[in-house]
Amino acid sequence: MDTLEALRAIAGETGVLSAAELATRSAGFLRPDTLKARALVRPRDTAEVSKAVRWCHDNGLRIVTQGGLTGLVHGADVSPEEVIVSTERMRAIELIDPVQRIAVVQAGVTLQALQEAVEPHDLSFPLDLGARGSATLGGNAATNAGGNRVIRYGMMRDMVLGLEVVLADGTILSSMNRLIKNNAGYDLKQVFIGSEGTLGIITRLVLRLREKPRSLDVAIVAVPSFEALTRLLKHADSALGGSLSAFEVMWQSFYRLVTSPPARGKPPVGHDHPYYVLIESLGANARLDSERFVAALETAIETKLISDAAVAQSEAERRAFWALRDDVVQVVVGGMPVVFDISLPLAAMEQYVAALGRDLAVGIGEHRLWIFGHLGDGNLHVIVQVQPQDYMVLRPKIEAIVYGPLGRLGGSVSAEHGIGLEKKPYLSVCRSEGEIALMRALKAALDPAGILNPGKIF
Amino acid sequence: MDTLEALRAIAGETGVLSAAELATRSAGFLRPDTLKARALVRPRDTAEVSKAVRWCHDNGLRIVTQGGLTGLVHGADVSPEEVIVSTERMRAIELIDPVQRIAVVQAGVTLQALQEAVEPHDLSFPLDLGARGSATLGGNAATNAGGNRVIRYGMMRDMVLGLEVVLADGTILSSMNRLIKNNAGYDLKQVFIGSEGTLGIITRLVLRLREKPRSLDVAIVAVPSFEALTRLLKHADSALGGSLSAFEVMWQSFYRLVTSPPARGKPPVGHDHPYYVLIESLGANARLDSERFVAALETAIETKLISDAAVAQSEAERRAFWALRDDVVQVVVGGMPVVFDISLPLAAMEQYVAALGRDLAVGIGEHRLWIFGHLGDGNLHVIVQVQPQDYMVLRPKIEAIVYGPLGRLGGSVSAEHGIGLEKKPYLSVCRSEGEIALMRALKAALDPAGILNPGKIF
Repeated sequence: MDTLEALRAIAGETGVLSAAELATRSAGFLRPDTLKARALVRPRDTAEVSKAVRWCHDNGLRIVTQGGLTGLVHGADVSPEEVIVSTERMRAIELIDPVQRIAVVQAGVTLQALQEAVEPHDLSFPLDLGARGSATLGGNAATNAGGNRVIRYGMMRDMVLGLEVVLADGTILSSMNRLIKNNAGYDLKQVFIGSEGTLGIITRLVLRLREKPRSLDVAIVAVPSFEALTRLLKHADSALGGSLSAFEVMWQSFYRLVTSPPARGKPPVGHDHPYYVLIESLGANARLDSERFVAALETAIETKLISDAAVAQSEAERRAFWALRDDVVQVVVGGMPVVFDISLPLAAMEQYVAALGRDLAVGIGEHRLWIFGHLGDGNLHVIVQVQPQDYMVLRPKIEAIVYGPLGRLGGSVSAEHGIGLEKKPYLSVCRSEGEIALMRALKAALDPAGILNPGKIF
Repeated sequence: MDTLEALRAIAGETGVLSAAELATRSAGFLRPDTLKARALVRPRDTAEVSKAVRWCHDNGLRIVTQGGLTGLVHGADVSPEEVIVSTERMRAIELIDPVQRIAVVQAGVTLQALQEAVEPHDLSFPLDLGARGSATLGGNAATNAGGNRVIRYGMMRDMVLGLEVVLADGTILSSMNRLIKNNAGYDLKQVFIGSEGTLGIITRLVLRLREKPRSLDVAIVAVPSFEALTRLLKHADSALGGSLSAFEVMWQSFYRLVTSPPARGKPPVGHDHPYYVLIESLGANARLDSERFVAALETAIETKLISDAAVAQSEAERRAFWALRDDVVQVVVGGMPVVFDISLPLAAMEQYVAALGRDLAVGIGEHRLWIFGHLGDGNLHVIVQVQPQDYMVLRPKIEAIVYGPLGRLGGSVSAEHGIGLEKKPYLSVCRSEGEIALMRALKAALDPAGILNPGKIF
């Protein structure tokens, strides 16, 4: 039986697309190319995924799982001889339980669909990131997605209670735990979360929901020095108790970029400070929380941690402040951006950034450099913009300059986007031979034939 | 070379105890027996652990790692032919970094030693449990300890950033990540956390610290029904924002036990309510947080979620309220307790407890039954007291009655204590054949000769 025929017998006539039918499908977010694969199968449930995987396994075919294709590290790239398992028809929200505060979903449900579905229950699913409309919850788990509110709620790993996974030979592993605490043997889901589809295919998830916050306070503040920035983070965390939900730092050049034409954003505070922070608090009592928020900022001004501050006075202002931080698209104006997602210890950050500017000037000549990030988590997004005609030549040089010092500093080449194919050559910058050997041992134990997302990570 | 000689060459003369020298050492907390093993080696650092493990590995000896011996499930029990690796001489706190908010410790540091060491830095290590004075951080990680404040800070898993582990053949795996976000390949530490010493020996840890809370509010409230209890949990979580740090429920019989002679505790509210809850909030601003705390309780009284409440007015009262919840030792008065640590979905809990009382009456006759627990996490401690002369006969019957329904209800035989030897016969109540098979596959991949903590979990 040929591949298409076999997969159609499993997933139905409309459940399989041929190589020819794929030729009109984009390969992913912001990508000019289309999907090139032997076939794409769209199972409707775990049982169909299992059957499709078993058939591929028994017939020596390799598999790439695809969700919303919003990843940024070529983690779901496919080769022409491989089969794509897409979760696009697995979009059922099976359960929302407001007492246990969990949701049970199929892997293809988008992040935004779940966020909107829990809202009427006065609950929230607190993972949040720009790609929410397309990114799937299965993909969020496979890549351990981060986003804007890690400081308060953690990463995707912290929101997954249970998983159903199809293993490399088609075996269904159902570990759909609904409990916050369960120490009955190894916590198997941890093996699959963040493994980028290389150890199993996540088909269903049990997710932890939270009570919907009742208050929201947002400010943009100017900070006079990096040392003040690290002290402000501690102060905000301490003075806002458990309600600090974002601490998003913008270096001056990024702040200017997103508050000057052609960007449409207006600067809430002046342009001449070295650092700016968007501080957000999600709380429980609008009046008392706002009072506490303002008191915390006042203390920071008195102790010179903040040189200027603007507190959002309306929902429109809150949105406008976040829109500045999120207006990353400005980095494509006038050149081609090379985008990084690194993390490093706070104590090393100021010197790292200073050296980065110098090393880029020496190594690649003229460029633009913007930095912003989730400082509360040590996560910086570094963007280097070059002229389009120089991009291909300069990109490896820029990568070497950005990644080079991270090993020595105890940093990471990927805070949240993952490794995929893009960062595979740099994994050894921040992982030892021993660590990579153990990753290979896990891969060999779970996928001895190497058929799941081949060639990714290591 | 014989075992003692070889181990002394590695860990020094005083670093090894013979079987004879162990005869005076207790086998653990509340245990009448002493340690019976081939030898106990006390390495001073990871390198010595590695050498000792390699020697055992190469000479076919099996190893049990021991920390503070405060576990409750016989997870560190040893056989006479096995070698004990004790972390008792690995007590260095290597680093406390108040900017990065991390600590680096050796595995033998006690929980309390770390709690006290970070205090002068205005930081806290928020894991907390009764055995804090003896329990080691390595043991806390190996068993994924829970405790009193999981609802706010998560379990030990959520506090570990990096680990150093000695693998079964003596290889040192150093994965001492200091970053909150690091998605560079598989998150290897997750494999070892909660694996009860069966996959590797944890020798060093990087731990996440938190800002020390500035406010503390505690109340004991009476609740008229189980349905009110689940609504009160949601209300408290929502109305206290991120500051709710404990929601400890006591069923009436347990509340009466700890507030009646011979217990020394006095009842803050009357004896006749079906449920009592200790609610705690850890916050940032003493005045505003107390105002919010009282407002949240007042709303709960108005909406009949609470029938009576006592708010602690002093540090002494706060301690007295917690002392009630912690006065578990009363369960040994007048009989022998069988202690359980289960979790189950909130929706199933009321009926489960009602059925439990009936089934015990039918199955074992006269007994006393007390229930309390971390309801915010679905975790109940169930204690069944019988007469000492009946203990050995009744214990398996009681286990069957307590564990029996959990599989059907989606519960767990261990919320936080782990499996060890004690719950091994019951693992299949809450884990499927497929899950246990995958646990075995991980064990086979990491410890093919089966020398690490043999026979535990499965």
